[in-house]
Amino acid sequence: MSVRVGVIGVGMIGQDHIRRLSTVLSGADVVAVSDVDLPHAEAVAGQVSARVSPSGHDLVKDNEVDAVLVASWGGTHEEYVLACIEAGKPVFCEKPLATTQEACVRILDAEVAAGRRLVQVGYMRRYDAAYRALKAVVQEGSIGAPLMMHCTHRNPSVPGYYEADSAITDTAVHEIDMVRWLFDEEIVATTVLHPRRSRNGGELQDPMILILEMDSGIIVDVEVSVNIRYGYDIRGEVVGENGTAALGEASPVTIRLNGGVTNRVPADWRERFSRAYDIELQEWVDAVRAGGEYGPNSWDGYAAAVVSDAAVEVRRSCRRTTVQLLEKPALYAANG
Amino acid sequence: MSVRVGVIGVGMIGQDHIRRLSTVLSGADVVAVSDVDLPHAEAVAGQVSARVSPSGHDLVKDNEVDAVLVASWGGTHEEYVLACIEAGKPVFCEKPLATTQEACVRILDAEVAAGRRLVQVGYMRRYDAAYRALKAVVQEGSIGAPLMMHCTHRNPSVPGYYEADSAITDTAVHEIDMVRWLFDEEIVATTVLHPRRSRNGGELQDPMILILEMDSGIIVDVEVSVNIRYGYDIRGEVVGENGTAALGEASPVTIRLNGGVTNRVPADWRERFSRAYDIELQEWVDAVRAGGEYGPNSWDGYAAAVVSDAAVEVRRSCRRTTVQLLEKPALYAANG
Amino acid sequence: MSVRVGVIGVGMIGQDHIRRLSTVLSGADVVAVSDVDLPHAEAVAGQVSARVSPSGHDLVKDNEVDAVLVASWGGTHEEYVLACIEAGKPVFCEKPLATTQEACVRILDAEVAAGRRLVQVGYMRRYDAAYRALKAVVQEGSIGAPLMMHCTHRNPSVPGYYEADSAITDTAVHEIDMVRWLFDEEIVATTVLHPRRSRNGGELQDPMILILEMDSGIIVDVEVSVNIRYGYDIRGEVVGENGTAALGEASPVTIRLNGGVTNRVPADWRERFSRAYDIELQEWVDAVRAGGEYGPNSWDGYAAAVVSDAAVEVRRSCRRTTVQLLEKPALYAANG
Amino acid sequence: MSVRVGVIGVGMIGQDHIRRLSTVLSGADVVAVSDVDLPHAEAVAGQVSARVSPSGHDLVKDNEVDAVLVASWGGTHEEYVLACIEAGKPVFCEKPLATTQEACVRILDAEVAAGRRLVQVGYMRRYDAAYRALKAVVQEGSIGAPLMMHCTHRNPSVPGYYEADSAITDTAVHEIDMVRWLFDEEIVATTVLHPRRSRNGGELQDPMILILEMDSGIIVDVEVSVNIRYGYDIRGEVVGENGTAALGEASPVTIRLNGGVTNRVPADWRERFSRAYDIELQEWVDAVRAGGEYGPNSWDGYAAAVVSDAAVEVRRSCRRTTVQLLEKPALYAANG
Repeated sequence: MSVRVGVIGVGMIGQDHIRRLSTVLSGADVVAVSDVDLPHAEAVAGQVSARVSPSGHDLVKDNEVDAVLVASWGGTHEEYVLACIEAGKPVFCEKPLATTQEACVRILDAEVAAGRRLVQVGYMRRYDAAYRALKAVVQEGSIGAPLMMHCTHRNPSVPGYYEADSAITDTAVHEIDMVRWLFDEEIVATTVLHPRRSRNGGELQDPMILILEMDSGIIVDVEVSVNIRYGYDIRGEVVGENGTAALGEASPVTIRLNGGVTNRVPADWRERFSRAYDIELQEWVDAVRAGGEYGPNSWDGYAAAVVSDAAVEVRRSCRRTTVQLLEKPALYAANG
Repeated sequence: MSVRVGVIGVGMIGQDHIRRLSTVLSGADVVAVSDVDLPHAEAVAGQVSARVSPSGHDLVKDNEVDAVLVASWGGTHEEYVLACIEAGKPVFCEKPLATTQEACVRILDAEVAAGRRLVQVGYMRRYDAAYRALKAVVQEGSIGAPLMMHCTHRNPSVPGYYEADSAITDTAVHEIDMVRWLFDEEIVATTVLHPRRSRNGGELQDPMILILEMDSGIIVDVEVSVNIRYGYDIRGEVVGENGTAALGEASPVTIRLNGGVTNRVPADWRERFSRAYDIELQEWVDAVRAGGEYGPNSWDGYAAAVVSDAAVEVRRSCRRTTVQLLEKPALYAANG
Repeated sequence: MSVRVGVIGVGMIGQDHIRRLSTVLSGADVVAVSDVDLPHAEAVAGQVSARVSPSGHDLVKDNEVDAVLVASWGGTHEEYVLACIEAGKPVFCEKPLATTQEACVRILDAEVAAGRRLVQVGYMRRYDAAYRALKAVVQEGSIGAPLMMHCTHRNPSVPGYYEADSAITDTAVHEIDMVRWLFDEEIVATTVLHPRRSRNGGELQDPMILILEMDSGIIVDVEVSVNIRYGYDIRGEVVGENGTAALGEASPVTIRLNGGVTNRVPADWRERFSRAYDIELQEWVDAVRAGGEYGPNSWDGYAAAVVSDAAVEVRRSCRRTTVQLLEKPALYAANG
Repeated sequence: MSVRVGVIGVGMIGQDHIRRLSTVLSGADVVAVSDVDLPHAEAVAGQVSARVSPSGHDLVKDNEVDAVLVASWGGTHEEYVLACIEAGKPVFCEKPLATTQEACVRILDAEVAAGRRLVQVGYMRRYDAAYRALKAVVQEGSIGAPLMMHCTHRNPSVPGYYEADSAITDTAVHEIDMVRWLFDEEIVATTVLHPRRSRNGGELQDPMILILEMDSGIIVDVEVSVNIRYGYDIRGEVVGENGTAALGEASPVTIRLNGGVTNRVPADWRERFSRAYDIELQEWVDAVRAGGEYGPNSWDGYAAAVVSDAAVEVRRSCRRTTVQLLEKPALYAANG
């Protein structure tokens, strides 16, 4: 039996998930959609023979919807996720889980009260084959205990609405979640550094360096360059006691031309992570069908919010700040 | 509406396709299976809630089967493919199309008589992202007209039943199909060379070098090494007038340890081409649903058989031989 | 006419330079040596038919010595360099120029009073082909203005006398000089970070991260790992506005074996920089013969000492500190 | 005591060797030069304070010349080499040793009669660090017995006087010598293949594939492309029973720009092999001083001539031909 999925929010991300569930993945049908823009919802629904729900809350309550995918505007995530928990339905919520720490805590509280994990947050890097291979090498132990990690997060350009905090809240937040998962420990302090500014970024502080300190003392440095033109380049090298392990540099072809041997860099995040999005959602569908555990959960969404807020707070001052998390509820003890 | 697929032959390959159609791909249901080993067919069918047909021919005639996947022993391919053509049903036939040139010609004749292309042969390299990127570079023209191609086809080891001709009929046949597709022209001559023998291969002439001459004069050299231990390593470099383009060397991680920087080589063909198999079958399913064109067709299966036979003929003598194809029927004029 | 060189100090480094001048380079003869260990001096002198001077000061005054190479213990550098300046003879002084900032200033004062540059300090990275190619790319401008640089300085192990400050004064001091030369500007601030400690380093704070801020705002991060076992690995990537340029990873051979494609990492600094030492000394000999300008000068030696002292000062506290240099004398205005 | 070298022939190659002996290497002085163009000889001699000999034969007889470097036109090599053997003086002869097999045999006979090896032929690849590392890996044995080698010899362009046979006699002759040295065995057969022609080469058969069969059965394929525009690209991969070893791809810098990660290819043979020429001549000078053995000898020069002639003979017919060498004199038994 296929999982009957309802999708709240049919903007670019929502539509992409609908396409994925309908034409790429196995075991799911999109049966209902909703959007604040009703005619738009109707147009999208028509393409996949889904119903249109009058509102996200109606969609959540729909008896023929087994599981919900929330891809609406960030400010609405909290209410829909809470509604799903109340309805006892698995929910896949695009990042962020919610736009404030307080909202994240309300979701934690509701889920703890419900007594089971229903929420998955859309941190897709955990599903990328290269990151998974990297984690396997770190865990296998040949490079020794991990001591540092060097990351680069480079975008060729960013849209006009990208603002000062976005380098942290939209961009580096992926590394914030990734290192928590990779090392299976929390971030305890963070610092922001401001290198010389790129003229490509106009008024923006671009690039930015984010220093993350893990609970065990591992230091992670993250270069965030969001107007570097040449490509979308995500790199990461874990430095251990005896050696290092890095994300591979995959290029489908190698070209020898004009004095050089050239491998390709992805043009954008779609090219780089398209397959990770597929796997993320397939594994969620499989978990919903099996009644099993999901991926990045509400606690992960909450922790990312707290670290991100701490970094935003010291963004201008370039001071170091410690990160304070609540005590972790037992429900989230066995992290995936 | 999902395509209702019947699978003939539930050995290792057949089961893998059933798994793929049932749990990985979108738009298909396995509704019927058949196998000479009936109890085995029942066990496999049970896992995916499919019916068991008494025979492959019954399965082809089943009104609730829209399309057929043939994964039985090579010697039976001809009869099932002919049955599908007679029934007017799309058929995906694992390689080879048939075990003799004559059988391939009977299939061509039947399909031409039927007046439409129904057959796809399982040459999955055409669906590999790296080969597709390579073809795109060659066609785009920056390296100039292609003049040569250097290929390596390396296996860590081969099973006990692998015999003298297998290096051509099982192994290099992938390159035979691939270069026809990559350069969109026929092979007109071939030569076999025998390098010093590897002790890993026992009595086998391993490695072997196969020289393929294309219609335009492009020369392709293929190294076939099937006991090279270190990994499954498929490489290819097209040499043009101004530069070259090669398959990229993708490794999920790069490890710095013990005096070296190491990228991984796939362990076997599953690791290397697993994604190509997915895409191959998804595109076939999509084509069946759309009523559109399929991938490698009967003509491709026939041409591979003729070249392969020619190479087998000169395998011992190390002489050059020309390759003679029938005139290509108009039905296959527009090659994909 | 060959340059007649006198060498003060015939320990490991001194002997290596004698070998280089005698059997590798063109245009120089080692005519005199001195060492506190007289019998050792005599043994070394005998191999190259050189005289033994009773003391370093006698060697400097020797009329048949055209130029001096100082490779004695660091604490003696100041006096010999000053003696050479007084004698008006070109002197190549192994790093450090002197062991205190004050001593460096006395050398600057003496050279300024003498009115010409006679001193070259042994920072050999400026002579490495890869660093020179990197500088050429940065200057050529295609990657845009430089904004950051990521460096790693990794040693497989360090000798027993290596102590807490050595990570800065012996190891990172190479990067301190290199970035001043690469970007042609001074370092204005520095910070030390302490990642989780490697058990390979015992009590040592190893690894260490050194942050260097350049006058234009460029931020350089330097990973110093001195017990990382796998090899001697010097890397550097300059991040510009539109792209990046990094030191290439040269390996004489690429081996495909045991599931991997492996390139080599140098075993130690000799393997990595042996050719740079040759070129450094050949260019010095050529400059002495031509009466021309030398490489890294007294000002460079002084600046490295000041930055290094500043980093040592904050080594324990992990605080940021600014770097204060004297006003640069006009003699050093045209930096090489 | 420096070796006093006389240089016959001061064209481009001769001058480059004079520059090398005078300003790069240790232990040699150019004391005499000769050239058919006397004024030119005088101009070059003046730059290094050498004498001009009235003729090459006078130069060889000059008592103040310890060793001779022959860089004159190929047709004159035989007579000068024979004169050196007669005079009992070490001679470094640029390739080819002589322009016919018969002339090579006369040199062999003379040297055998003289009873000691005095001749070194200028095959500089044996001195290249990458080829030496490759040979060390092959000999060390981890990849197993060598079975095949794939080589590419690519030039961006060739001068106007380059003709049909040059692809063999000027270009592939380097691989002919190299594989004899690398595998320490003779070539027993050869075949020429003609791929589709590059329009960059006009009337020339370019590219060409040369197949070399070694005594043990190793097969070497050599791609010769001499108008491939993108760079000077020398590659080589030895395929063993368990793995492969290839020349590394060294690039001083790696640039990330415009959608790609690019390493450099050398622009021409000077850039690629300049260091090998230095080492070749330094080792020759060192051997002359030590009275020791030299590198590639007359037998190597003879064998290269025989293989090269055999390939030229079948260049048009594309037939295979065997290679017949004389019996190897005992003088050359212990090959370096």
